[in-house]
Amino acid sequence: MRNFARRAAILALAATALAGPLTGAAHAAPATLYAPSALVLTVGHGETAAGVTPERAVTLNCAPKPSGTHPDPVSACAELRRVDGDLGALESESGILCTREYDPVVVTVDGVWQGQRVSYERTFGNECVMNASSTSVYAF
Amino acid sequence: MRNFARRAAILALAATALAGPLTGAAHAAPATLYAPSALVLTVGHGETAAGVTPERAVTLNCAPKPSGTHPDPVSACAELRRVDGDLGALESESGILCTREYDPVVVTVDGVWQGQRVSYERTFGNECVMNASSTSVYAF
Repeated sequence: MRNFARRAAILALAATALAGPLTGAAHAAPATLYAPSALVLTVGHGETAAGVTPERAVTLNCAPKPSGTHPDPVSACAELRRVDGDLGALESESGILCTREYDPVVVTVDGVWQGQRVSYERTFGNECVMNASSTSVYAF
Repeated sequence: MRNFARRAAILALAATALAGPLTGAAHAAPATLYAPSALVLTVGHGETAAGVTPERAVTLNCAPKPSGTHPDPVSACAELRRVDGDLGALESESGILCTREYDPVVVTVDGVWQGQRVSYERTFGNECVMNASSTSVYAF
């Protein structure tokens, strides 16, 4: 155990020594510690993102910790992690029933998920269907 | 002055009455109050965003107030407002001199600026040139 403690102490010292210069070069530090996850989500009424003026837009960061102007970053990040960032795989467990009225809304998600670029667009028949399609991610 | 105070009180009451139902319908409120400005900025080494894995990614909100994982949202938003969101018009006043070494970096900016979609990509000859091209926006 003593050996282990000594090794841990040496590792901690080495980590501190490494962290010292890195904090000086603040620009390069984050990339070495975690893959960035930073997204912008928008929603607007219409059929395609190209022709729609976004009515609402929020940011969502999931690394190193959930934050952003999304109303519930913790739940939204947890939901995205569950589907491994695959936005097409989002599903709600709420069992909401929607009318079939056609009043399309477009959701877009752009940015980076765990270091990989994301550019996602999805059209829902109406806002109820959109809200029913995810528990937290699209609730903004 | 008394009349003014009475009018102010009536206005305050009216504002409260208006704010009441709006907080209930939280989803729809922001769009009616301000045009959203929510961006994701990334940087990576390479020539085009399509072929580059982003090394750093930050979010930047400029409405209703500056926030995000960008290290200096206040300055970055002020700089973007100065150029009216025209990223191609960003200029630094620092007078930094850079070598002409070719080690390209790609910056991307995606999301929404004052209600309008933004999808911007720019390649710089090297990181020094990128840093010299803006005072705050690309300093992340």
